[in-house]
Amino acid sequence: MLRVMQKRSRKAGLPPGTPVHIGERKSEATRLTLLHYDAQSATEKEIQAVEECRAFRDMSGVTWINVTGLHEVERLAQLGNTLSLHPLVLEDIFNTDQRPKSEDYGEYIYVVLKALGNGDAEQEITAEQISLILGRHFVISFLESDSGIFNAVKERVLKNPDRFGKLGADYLAYALMDTVVDNYFAIFEKLGDRIEALQQSLVARPAQETLRALNTLKREMLYLRKSVWPLREVVSGLQRGDSPLIQKATGLYLRDLYDHIIHVIDTIETYRDMLSGMLDIYLSSLNMRLNEVMKVLTIIATIFMPLSFIVGVYGMNFRYMPELSWHWGYPLVLLLMLAIAGGMLVFFRRKKWI
Amino acid sequence: MLRVMQKRSRKAGLPPGTPVHIGERKSEATRLTLLHYDAQSATEKEIQAVEECRAFRDMSGVTWINVTGLHEVERLAQLGNTLSLHPLVLEDIFNTDQRPKSEDYGEYIYVVLKALGNGDAEQEITAEQISLILGRHFVISFLESDSGIFNAVKERVLKNPDRFGKLGADYLAYALMDTVVDNYFAIFEKLGDRIEALQQSLVARPAQETLRALNTLKREMLYLRKSVWPLREVVSGLQRGDSPLIQKATGLYLRDLYDHIIHVIDTIETYRDMLSGMLDIYLSSLNMRLNEVMKVLTIIATIFMPLSFIVGVYGMNFRYMPELSWHWGYPLVLLLMLAIAGGMLVFFRRKKWI
Amino acid sequence: MLRVMQKRSRKAGLPPGTPVHIGERKSEATRLTLLHYDAQSATEKEIQAVEECRAFRDMSGVTWINVTGLHEVERLAQLGNTLSLHPLVLEDIFNTDQRPKSEDYGEYIYVVLKALGNGDAEQEITAEQISLILGRHFVISFLESDSGIFNAVKERVLKNPDRFGKLGADYLAYALMDTVVDNYFAIFEKLGDRIEALQQSLVARPAQETLRALNTLKREMLYLRKSVWPLREVVSGLQRGDSPLIQKATGLYLRDLYDHIIHVIDTIETYRDMLSGMLDIYLSSLNMRLNEVMKVLTIIATIFMPLSFIVGVYGMNFRYMPELSWHWGYPLVLLLMLAIAGGMLVFFRRKKWI
Amino acid sequence: MLRVMQKRSRKAGLPPGTPVHIGERKSEATRLTLLHYDAQSATEKEIQAVEECRAFRDMSGVTWINVTGLHEVERLAQLGNTLSLHPLVLEDIFNTDQRPKSEDYGEYIYVVLKALGNGDAEQEITAEQISLILGRHFVISFLESDSGIFNAVKERVLKNPDRFGKLGADYLAYALMDTVVDNYFAIFEKLGDRIEALQQSLVARPAQETLRALNTLKREMLYLRKSVWPLREVVSGLQRGDSPLIQKATGLYLRDLYDHIIHVIDTIETYRDMLSGMLDIYLSSLNMRLNEVMKVLTIIATIFMPLSFIVGVYGMNFRYMPELSWHWGYPLVLLLMLAIAGGMLVFFRRKKWI
Amino acid sequence: MLRVMQKRSRKAGLPPGTPVHIGERKSEATRLTLLHYDAQSATEKEIQAVEECRAFRDMSGVTWINVTGLHEVERLAQLGNTLSLHPLVLEDIFNTDQRPKSEDYGEYIYVVLKALGNGDAEQEITAEQISLILGRHFVISFLESDSGIFNAVKERVLKNPDRFGKLGADYLAYALMDTVVDNYFAIFEKLGDRIEALQQSLVARPAQETLRALNTLKREMLYLRKSVWPLREVVSGLQRGDSPLIQKATGLYLRDLYDHIIHVIDTIETYRDMLSGMLDIYLSSLNMRLNEVMKVLTIIATIFMPLSFIVGVYGMNFRYMPELSWHWGYPLVLLLMLAIAGGMLVFFRRKKWI
Repeated sequence: MLRVMQKRSRKAGLPPGTPVHIGERKSEATRLTLLHYDAQSATEKEIQAVEECRAFRDMSGVTWINVTGLHEVERLAQLGNTLSLHPLVLEDIFNTDQRPKSEDYGEYIYVVLKALGNGDAEQEITAEQISLILGRHFVISFLESDSGIFNAVKERVLKNPDRFGKLGADYLAYALMDTVVDNYFAIFEKLGDRIEALQQSLVARPAQETLRALNTLKREMLYLRKSVWPLREVVSGLQRGDSPLIQKATGLYLRDLYDHIIHVIDTIETYRDMLSGMLDIYLSSLNMRLNEVMKVLTIIATIFMPLSFIVGVYGMNFRYMPELSWHWGYPLVLLLMLAIAGGMLVFFRRKKWI
Repeated sequence: MLRVMQKRSRKAGLPPGTPVHIGERKSEATRLTLLHYDAQSATEKEIQAVEECRAFRDMSGVTWINVTGLHEVERLAQLGNTLSLHPLVLEDIFNTDQRPKSEDYGEYIYVVLKALGNGDAEQEITAEQISLILGRHFVISFLESDSGIFNAVKERVLKNPDRFGKLGADYLAYALMDTVVDNYFAIFEKLGDRIEALQQSLVARPAQETLRALNTLKREMLYLRKSVWPLREVVSGLQRGDSPLIQKATGLYLRDLYDHIIHVIDTIETYRDMLSGMLDIYLSSLNMRLNEVMKVLTIIATIFMPLSFIVGVYGMNFRYMPELSWHWGYPLVLLLMLAIAGGMLVFFRRKKWI
Repeated sequence: MLRVMQKRSRKAGLPPGTPVHIGERKSEATRLTLLHYDAQSATEKEIQAVEECRAFRDMSGVTWINVTGLHEVERLAQLGNTLSLHPLVLEDIFNTDQRPKSEDYGEYIYVVLKALGNGDAEQEITAEQISLILGRHFVISFLESDSGIFNAVKERVLKNPDRFGKLGADYLAYALMDTVVDNYFAIFEKLGDRIEALQQSLVARPAQETLRALNTLKREMLYLRKSVWPLREVVSGLQRGDSPLIQKATGLYLRDLYDHIIHVIDTIETYRDMLSGMLDIYLSSLNMRLNEVMKVLTIIATIFMPLSFIVGVYGMNFRYMPELSWHWGYPLVLLLMLAIAGGMLVFFRRKKWI
Repeated sequence: MLRVMQKRSRKAGLPPGTPVHIGERKSEATRLTLLHYDAQSATEKEIQAVEECRAFRDMSGVTWINVTGLHEVERLAQLGNTLSLHPLVLEDIFNTDQRPKSEDYGEYIYVVLKALGNGDAEQEITAEQISLILGRHFVISFLESDSGIFNAVKERVLKNPDRFGKLGADYLAYALMDTVVDNYFAIFEKLGDRIEALQQSLVARPAQETLRALNTLKREMLYLRKSVWPLREVVSGLQRGDSPLIQKATGLYLRDLYDHIIHVIDTIETYRDMLSGMLDIYLSSLNMRLNEVMKVLTIIATIFMPLSFIVGVYGMNFRYMPELSWHWGYPLVLLLMLAIAGGMLVFFRRKKWI
Repeated sequence: MLRVMQKRSRKAGLPPGTPVHIGERKSEATRLTLLHYDAQSATEKEIQAVEECRAFRDMSGVTWINVTGLHEVERLAQLGNTLSLHPLVLEDIFNTDQRPKSEDYGEYIYVVLKALGNGDAEQEITAEQISLILGRHFVISFLESDSGIFNAVKERVLKNPDRFGKLGADYLAYALMDTVVDNYFAIFEKLGDRIEALQQSLVARPAQETLRALNTLKREMLYLRKSVWPLREVVSGLQRGDSPLIQKATGLYLRDLYDHIIHVIDTIETYRDMLSGMLDIYLSSLNMRLNEVMKVLTIIATIFMPLSFIVGVYGMNFRYMPELSWHWGYPLVLLLMLAIAGGMLVFFRRKKWI
């Protein structure tokens, strides 16, 4: 389930900048893959010793180091030191309870965002934190799990090194972020279907479970909102070109990405409004139902109470009750009661209760 | 029906800038019409081969290319290349799930907006995406369907080429946008009538269908809001004259357009407030009705329960019940019950229940 | 009644800048009055041919042309041409469905605002659109009806031409706007009284009509808000002195006017909050009432159901029921029932139901 | 009671700048007290003829003129002329329906704020308008009533002329405003106690009066908000040092005052949130209570209806009803009914209704 | 319990800048500890006479004076004078009812923030005001109680004087603030657990106490929001580097701190939304329950009222009722009633009531 807040107890009292892994362990092992490419060619290799990366730091062309699995804190801290990352950056990479943000450290830009996915269980949304380090000649990406979200990008790079090689490291960073945001659309399509289905069942038959489903959706919306909303500022910050690391040509692509994010945010807000509206329908359906129940009760009571009274009257044991000995007394009383019941029904029909 | 989000699944995993048609196919064929005019004359012709357009690109006077039907992706992509449009622009033109926006690409400005219309079914609102490319000497408009929304503008151009010819391509783009926004007013008049009618039926007789109609209106409002709200920024951006493509004289007209948009937005917000108020009326009508039902029940029960008790008393079979053998016993009991019923009625009258 | 939107159908398809009268016709004839004054003297005359106005355009001193009745479109369009007004200004003057705004056309400033009044029927609010054109030496005011709202200003000018003559045309425009805003206060006083009265009746006896009155007030508030809110920006824009047509001395008066508008807006928001609170009272009063009704029902049922059961028991026809032949059986049963009824009453008293 | 709006009818149609007293007359006579001090000494005297003030206008040291009672309009207008105040300032001083504001007239700054107090009746809040004129060498304060709110400041000046003399007229103005704001805290403490008490009684026993008290508090909050909220801008404007009349040293004190105002505003918002929460409790308490009432009714009906039916069965007069002549018929039926009643009670216990 | 406002009555009428202790006395004695360190070494000592501090004021290295317990007003005022603090700062330190803020006095920066903790009672949140004075070479911290919140920082300084010594006084101030904010996470984890537990119990069995717990949580949220929200501005103000007292290197750490605060604020807002959603669940659960109760009542009444009527009919004493003497009359009536009851049950099953 999506948690509002991760448990941070392991970290209490430690000095700022201490790298501690906060969050679930989502992958078996920590794997580092290095992809180096320029306008001519692209090569990929698995990395064991983090020192291997140092050579690539300032090499011309673009180097992309992809890290999956964050629990091997020491090894990754070593990687950070090799690339002279600030301790605070390292701390944030390991703490998977970050809100999306971008921080400019001069030499490199640090970007955090959340990738969304569908869990094993039907209708479950999972979130994974993705950290990107964008330097002049390199991009480092940190993923919590081995979900393969960046595989499509990797293949595109390997197939067209010339296209990517011309555009530089900032375009690679953009492509990674774009992949993450594109995934949002799939998630939101499914969410839309769930909301649609809920709305159907709400109108058909309001039940306590529907309300619970409604509330689960609302909580998920709150979470998604928290994950996507700050991304807007992140991308618009990058796009405005405050940093020399972002080239102008990439700015156009970032503007497009910004647009997609706004679209997602609009969708979240629309869904939230729809969910609020559904609660109103739910409550008024309950009220409607109560009204119906009470009408049935009232109709029954209003017809049978007077009738029961009448039969009670002729059940009294007074010695002198002339009607009792009339020959047509019984049928007359039956007729009288029929008339009363009929009159009541006409009354209810007039009031549009039946 | 208006969808919150179009299915984008066809697009997942493709690199940014790939043109894919997203949305329903709304027209049979893709048609290109070219209209060229200057202060002296105006000529119109149908275009088959997109290369024909290249000659007009930098020709003096104004060239308006109107495209209806977006599903012939390749042919239109070729048109885009002929006119050297950015791949991202092409991608956005084919993706009919854009929010209104304007993007300045230096050589040209790309504007997206939504035209609203009434569907075949009564009371259905349809939306169509319209893309405009405004260059120095040309305007290209992309429409999803053959709805003829721009026919009036075309005729005005053909009749008064001198007036349009003097004002340039930016005035043509304004005229097209103005037509789209003018159409909104007709849609909103109808919406206003529907809301009025709903309000009447709500007060007269609250029913579950009324609530559903209310909710449909609310959802439509959400959609319309999403379609119109960003337009405000689009037009104010154009009007502020950030681009040399917009002349000062056109700025006055854009200010007027901006005003119309604000008017539409105001109306949407007012309608939303009215719809919220109607929900409150609906809920309290339900409550009121329950109150009435319960009053009927209570009055009936309060009158007949004591009476039934009394007749029950004299239906007991005790051997020694002196009243039973009184000669006036029966009429006395009838009188007593009449008095009780009368007293109850007085009590209810005092409580203003009847 | 106040309409959210005027019917604009007559205008669909016309090019921008075409003058068409939109709105109700509120006066019999179109009348033009011209008032010319300088620091020495003031003269007033009725105008028939609009060309007479041309001479006054640049004459020293201040010329105020007051137009009442907007349906003689052609004659007024001619006036506009005589004074070289922009076609968009003319279009807006005739379209009485404008939101308050001010537009600077360099040579003159165009201001639209709404005058509020009380209709013939009790408790009806009417709105009239007022357009002002402020030039260097002249002010033109366009009124929908012959309501005489500016008579007081006219008299002040005729009595003290020296005072007005010294201050210029911008002060005259201010004085007209101030008159309109001053009128708001009277309208809001009456509205406050209506809200007060509604609150009284709400607490005394909630009824469906009260709810409807509440909703009417809410809608009126929405309308008034739309009429007053944008005025804030209009006046603050004029006051900031962006235009050379506004002198510094008049700025102080505009600041005062701005203050009044803020006061009106505050009042609207307070009224809206009060109306929202009243809905809560209404709903909870309904609930309270239902509670009371149900208590009566429950008390009656809880007392008489057990009693009816007891008398039913002794109405059974079993051959062997020893109690029936006891001599004190009947009085004992009566006592028992009295005790039960008493016990129930004590129970309800304890529960604070009675 | 606090009014949302004062009656302004006396003022309709008058030209702007006409001094008219709007509001209740809160004091018997209009009194003017003049206090002159410099770093060496301080003297106080009562003023009869307003011309006496003229001499002090530009005298070195600081002159504080305190005016209580605003109904002697002519005499005070004369004072205003003596000190060359702008007619709009005079108009605003007499109109006690101002929102807090500060206006810079170059030579002097005009500040309006609201002093709050407790009325004679328990739990009543009163408001008094206070106008301050801050010049280079003088401060003039206008109070509606003789409430003595500034007595403490006066004594501090008389005791420590050196301290005040060094700091200038702006510090005196600050000290007066600070006194007003300090008084707010006492008012809000009492309001907090009332809210606390209401919350107690709400939980203990919801009644219609509680709702009314809740609503009164809400309205008072609306009023207080209107009185305090604009003060924030007033003080922050003064503090930013736009005027040469405010010295830098006083800026620190104004920042402190600003802080207090923010504190008060925070408190108002918190109280408003608490009051909203209380309405929810109230409504759900009503619902809870209805639930309880209905449970009692249902339990009684569910137990006694079947029993009454059974005794009815054996009250039938069929000739052939074998049970009636059984010797153990009566006790068996009694046992049966006991069993049914017991079963019902077990059922309700299971449903946790009892 | 957390109070919205502290009693300030002791302070009414005093001149601004008078130091008075406002709030509870939370510690036995006032203790001053002085810690001096530079890049080489660190020493700690207890201080009795406040004059001892003067020597350290401008000494190179960093001096940290930690004060616990604020009730010895005179002694601490003397300390303030020794270090030439502004009277307004001293006043604010003693007034524990401040909202978080930072004030730049040139020579030093004054920061107030709130430390949160858990009280003795389960589920109680306590707040303590912490004041920091950051000068060029010194930091003074004022704590209300002896909670030892800064002990971890003290130990880190004593162990690594070199690390702290290099970074200066501003880093120490950051470390203290960071400690306070880190503590928030622990508090919010517990709050999250409480909300989770409440949600469980709400769904399982709505009761009046649940509502009260919900409301307590809401009030705590209001308080926490007031304590944390302004901190955002405080830290972002410090980080923007308006003051020369904050070095650039510390800016990075402050940005990290800012991030944490945003995270906390996000969490508060999410919790608030969740609590609002829970109220809706609660209310609809109440409604649901009422529906169920009423269904039981209606089913029972609808079955037994007609049956009771029938047995009543045959309990009448008419002389001529042929059915009574039929041999199969009694069993036939029983069968009839069984059929009616069965029909009713089928009807209810169809309506999905049972």
